[in-house]
Amino acid sequence: MNIGKPTLLLDENKCRKNIRNMVSRAKQNKVDFRPHFKTHQSLEVGSWFSHEGVSKITVSSCEMAHYFSTQWNDITIAFPVNILEINTINNLAAKINLNILLESEQSAGFMVSHAKENLGFFIKIDTGSHRTGLLPENKQTINRILEITTKNKLLEFKGFLSHAGHTYNCNTYNEVRDIYHKNLVILQELKQLYIGQFPNLILSTGDTPSASMLEDYEGVDEIRPGNFVFYDLTQLTIGAANASQIAIAMRCPVVAVHKHRNEVVLYGGGIHFSKEYIDYPGLGKIFGLPVKQNTDGTWGKVVEKACLSKLSQEHGILRAPKEWIDTCNIGDTVFLLPVHACMTVSCMKKYQRVGCNFSNGDKNEIKAMG
Amino acid sequence: MNIGKPTLLLDENKCRKNIRNMVSRAKQNKVDFRPHFKTHQSLEVGSWFSHEGVSKITVSSCEMAHYFSTQWNDITIAFPVNILEINTINNLAAKINLNILLESEQSAGFMVSHAKENLGFFIKIDTGSHRTGLLPENKQTINRILEITTKNKLLEFKGFLSHAGHTYNCNTYNEVRDIYHKNLVILQELKQLYIGQFPNLILSTGDTPSASMLEDYEGVDEIRPGNFVFYDLTQLTIGAANASQIAIAMRCPVVAVHKHRNEVVLYGGGIHFSKEYIDYPGLGKIFGLPVKQNTDGTWGKVVEKACLSKLSQEHGILRAPKEWIDTCNIGDTVFLLPVHACMTVSCMKKYQRVGCNFSNGDKNEIKAMG
Repeated sequence: MNIGKPTLLLDENKCRKNIRNMVSRAKQNKVDFRPHFKTHQSLEVGSWFSHEGVSKITVSSCEMAHYFSTQWNDITIAFPVNILEINTINNLAAKINLNILLESEQSAGFMVSHAKENLGFFIKIDTGSHRTGLLPENKQTINRILEITTKNKLLEFKGFLSHAGHTYNCNTYNEVRDIYHKNLVILQELKQLYIGQFPNLILSTGDTPSASMLEDYEGVDEIRPGNFVFYDLTQLTIGAANASQIAIAMRCPVVAVHKHRNEVVLYGGGIHFSKEYIDYPGLGKIFGLPVKQNTDGTWGKVVEKACLSKLSQEHGILRAPKEWIDTCNIGDTVFLLPVHACMTVSCMKKYQRVGCNFSNGDKNEIKAMG
Repeated sequence: MNIGKPTLLLDENKCRKNIRNMVSRAKQNKVDFRPHFKTHQSLEVGSWFSHEGVSKITVSSCEMAHYFSTQWNDITIAFPVNILEINTINNLAAKINLNILLESEQSAGFMVSHAKENLGFFIKIDTGSHRTGLLPENKQTINRILEITTKNKLLEFKGFLSHAGHTYNCNTYNEVRDIYHKNLVILQELKQLYIGQFPNLILSTGDTPSASMLEDYEGVDEIRPGNFVFYDLTQLTIGAANASQIAIAMRCPVVAVHKHRNEVVLYGGGIHFSKEYIDYPGLGKIFGLPVKQNTDGTWGKVVEKACLSKLSQEHGILRAPKEWIDTCNIGDTVFLLPVHACMTVSCMKKYQRVGCNFSNGDKNEIKAMG
């Protein structure tokens, strides 16, 4: 397989294994599974979830809900409802089971007067990440939303939803567990308070770190992790995945070798990887890690003491030990694990499939949204 | 003009003024002008340069050269030649005047045996930014490249090219001037050494900070700034532009207002702005700055003490003083100046035109590459 430009590889075997593993974890924990599709953004990868029996999904925008609505009929848009897209919302709700998120009286009031189709809604609770949602002590607004929304019978309260995104700042099991449990206690208190009035309400939560790391996450009704489908270096540093589970890699041409400073210049920059970085133990600020290439187009272990250390628009600077640089030539390609899979996929918008048997060259390319 | 999603606005008047200003500066300094088109990536914006008499351009990839080759017939790909794209290079060189960059014996040797069309080349010199290029003292490799390339008469040595990208780390006029002069001295020494052998060789340099800030940049033959077409907050902090020159802004819907912590949640995240940030005086790490909206769809001054302080995939968190937050409602839109125009354009891939007279609604959208 020859490439001329930066190319996003997807190891289908690893990816399907990640999917099966999470399906099985959800079953063991007796929770419903509504995976977030903002990571892969692809109908074809989505079909691998259907194959494992998954029937409902989460997305992060109306645009993404629209894209997936051709093949999925139960979608939660896990983003504060954008009232400027009311027409898209009504159109989607006419076609599929759609859930939105409310977290203010203003949005609730708007939806009461504008919803023209059956529409589920969750109240978004801020369990500590402080990005979006109502603070759990703000019962006044929760009550107001529940009161206002009774005025439009098309609106159905589904339950409370949280995203414990602050697990992304963790790097030990105990930290992730503590955040998850605090999140759980908050949600369960709300359930007890409101279950009498809404006997069918559910609790929906779930981020990839807690869904991957905790041996037990009973106590909620539904989980919505997304990143696990590919994992990435962020999940690796949190401890939510090991490198062998990461199912995507960038493949980039070498365009210059600077031996005197142990650097290689790659065609592959911020417009390909995104500018997301992490502080990696022993390496500092990194944008990716190179991995060893297998002869079948897949990849193996991380190259030690090497990293993608700088990115500009199209250039990537790879820093590596002398022994590795000495083996590197212009015209070679380097495989690299990304820091944040969701962002890299958003930049690349398509995949080259590896790690599976296929005979038809056309099927190597897997498209994503947009 | 209504929007439902994050939208990239382009103020045509400001942009055309930036173009005219740089054309005039190049003329005053008696240097050729080969603007870098990686910032706007748009045939239509490119046509505004043609209108000012510009006839040759710079791009950063074969893909971009291909895109612009339908309307431009003199293009330099200012990126170390990617030998894996030799077919694209030969195809382009058959159609237009194409220049590539060489900085190693290996690439030079490859081009000698594979170039099938007339092709200009520059030797890329590292004048201090240490991203790509040959160190100026490495005469051995310069000589080897010049010697090897005589073996294929289709290859023509055009001169020495540098990019003083380290001006991007400056924030005073004196720092930019010092870097520019050091860069100039290096290039001029090379010219003196090789002009006897290559009487037509030229010196090509130019980054937006030095091309915008220095009152005098004679001494080179050609400049290649790109970002000036729009400018951005990075150029503002360097001192290369003032806020009123910035010709693009993101417009984002408000989806939540968190008064208790003076924050607004915007629909507009890392996949729209890119994850590029700067440390801004008095505000810390920022991803954008909000500006006041004019009634005609353009924008005015920066909102004081406010900034885009966090980005996730689709969310942007805007932090602002209480007085401003109090005026903000769900369903409003906020206009924001981007940190790095080139990266934001690469994410958005199209513009909504403002700041000019137009009657045909279809003409409001300006497309960029890809």
